[in-house]
Amino acid sequence: MASPRITVIGGGVGNARFLLGLRAHAATLPEPPDLTAVVNVGDDMWLAGLRITPDLDTVMYALAGVNDVERGWGRAGDTERVSAELAAWGVGWPWFTLGDLDVGAHVTRTSLLRDGLPLSAVVERMTARWPLGVRLLPSTDHEVETYVRTSQGDLHFQEWWTRHRAAVSAEGFDFRGAQDATPAPGVLDAIESADVVILAPSNPIVSLDPVLAIPGIRAALERASAPVVGVSPIIGGAVVRGMADQCLTAVGVETSALAVARYLGARSNGGILDAWLVDEVDAASVSALRDAGIRAEAVPLWLRDEESSAAVARAALTLVAR
Amino acid sequence: MASPRITVIGGGVGNARFLLGLRAHAATLPEPPDLTAVVNVGDDMWLAGLRITPDLDTVMYALAGVNDVERGWGRAGDTERVSAELAAWGVGWPWFTLGDLDVGAHVTRTSLLRDGLPLSAVVERMTARWPLGVRLLPSTDHEVETYVRTSQGDLHFQEWWTRHRAAVSAEGFDFRGAQDATPAPGVLDAIESADVVILAPSNPIVSLDPVLAIPGIRAALERASAPVVGVSPIIGGAVVRGMADQCLTAVGVETSALAVARYLGARSNGGILDAWLVDEVDAASVSALRDAGIRAEAVPLWLRDEESSAAVARAALTLVAR
Repeated sequence: MASPRITVIGGGVGNARFLLGLRAHAATLPEPPDLTAVVNVGDDMWLAGLRITPDLDTVMYALAGVNDVERGWGRAGDTERVSAELAAWGVGWPWFTLGDLDVGAHVTRTSLLRDGLPLSAVVERMTARWPLGVRLLPSTDHEVETYVRTSQGDLHFQEWWTRHRAAVSAEGFDFRGAQDATPAPGVLDAIESADVVILAPSNPIVSLDPVLAIPGIRAALERASAPVVGVSPIIGGAVVRGMADQCLTAVGVETSALAVARYLGARSNGGILDAWLVDEVDAASVSALRDAGIRAEAVPLWLRDEESSAAVARAALTLVAR
Repeated sequence: MASPRITVIGGGVGNARFLLGLRAHAATLPEPPDLTAVVNVGDDMWLAGLRITPDLDTVMYALAGVNDVERGWGRAGDTERVSAELAAWGVGWPWFTLGDLDVGAHVTRTSLLRDGLPLSAVVERMTARWPLGVRLLPSTDHEVETYVRTSQGDLHFQEWWTRHRAAVSAEGFDFRGAQDATPAPGVLDAIESADVVILAPSNPIVSLDPVLAIPGIRAALERASAPVVGVSPIIGGAVVRGMADQCLTAVGVETSALAVARYLGARSNGGILDAWLVDEVDAASVSALRDAGIRAEAVPLWLRDEESSAAVARAALTLVAR
């Protein structure tokens, strides 16, 4: 009999932390499931002629155990010698630092892309370097980049977030290229043939929505035979990290676990959620969620380490196994 | 009155050492000349999606004073962190090491090329970082790469030289793309309006010939009003550095200062040389050179340091000023 399949959809840091826990939990199961992560490409960009894929890299580095845990992004022990050269020549964005080991990944990726490989094949080849325990799939092989509508004009997500630290008020988000994109090979199958689909605790607006904007992915979630369970990225009315609050505000959604679940919607009512895991501090929202047709439970949701992340993964699987 | 103009044609290391001396000598003249170097691009290549220009970099780094003097190539104090990543992913050539600072140059160059700038504009922008005192021009904006015909098939010059250390016998050289190339902007003018043209002590077969193979450049040398003086890269029947002996043998030319001058030929007889500077140990060839219509003189020709290089530059200028 084939192993059970678990498919996770998400972005960068929150997704990576969740996957570390899921992988640890999966290893304890009598029948270890195959794990697949469908990762957002909306943060991707061309910079200094290099194709940068922040979310895929964050997840790959974390699962490989080579990520910088202190800093929260990039490779551990990285240096910035190449970046300094680019800055001296005025190439690239001075506010977007590339570590040297990172540049190694970007040059490798760009080289393979220029050779004609689709991103999914590049990811397959690059992730083969380490025994990740999770198959990584980009949401699409097409270039779909998130732009932020602001009073200062449209900004690439990276410029809005990394350069301006989201201090320029966002009025909306466009996933440029999404309407002409198709899911990367394996993505629809990973959703349709999964035993469980999990939405990682990622920013719903700029990590999940750009995945859902790829034609076919939302429909696959709607018709999937597997239950779809999400982990709230909002705890006690505040973001765990990042700028989901500004993003949610921009699209008129309250920064709360309940509001995000309602935004994603119950599958029984045209949405994509069967279940939603909230933090203990949001226990009061559980009954409202159930009223909205979404199974819910309140558990400790802070992903402090592998153990706490594994407990969250276990709780998510338990919630939809009942 | 305009400053006198000196134009040097050459390749990498020998050219760079000569230019350092020429620049030093020029600074001592009552009327400092404008210096232009037309640099070989035959060693250039695409590697890991990056455009590498070894001769231009060698000259730029040397004139900028940031070259690795000990090692003889690359940047001083460079590291190889990016290269190690590429090797781990199996991208690039494991035998062709890229320093990290070097990668900064390659990423910058490639980015500007991908933006649509011709190589000459990229070189102009990148060299503006330092007060080089010499204007660098690539021989052409086209991609002209040297391939070596061997019993093992055609090898890119870098593969033949850097990987095989010229141990695979060369049967000939092709400058792929040369026939469809045109001189980079400024190259013909630098030759035609020069007061003196100097052939640097570079490999005649793989540094000078790929420049001369660009249609229009040899003709410009033939008709230039300025005298053309060459500095022999061969001293006492041996190469100073590199593999000119194997290259010369492959095209049936003896490894001697005299034979190389005859290979380049006297301008009075369809060649490109008015004068040829040889080392003291080759003094016996001076009369044969004069018989061949080439002014000649024997002087110490080892470019050990800036002072000895300046003396060679002075001797070259003196030889054609008489």
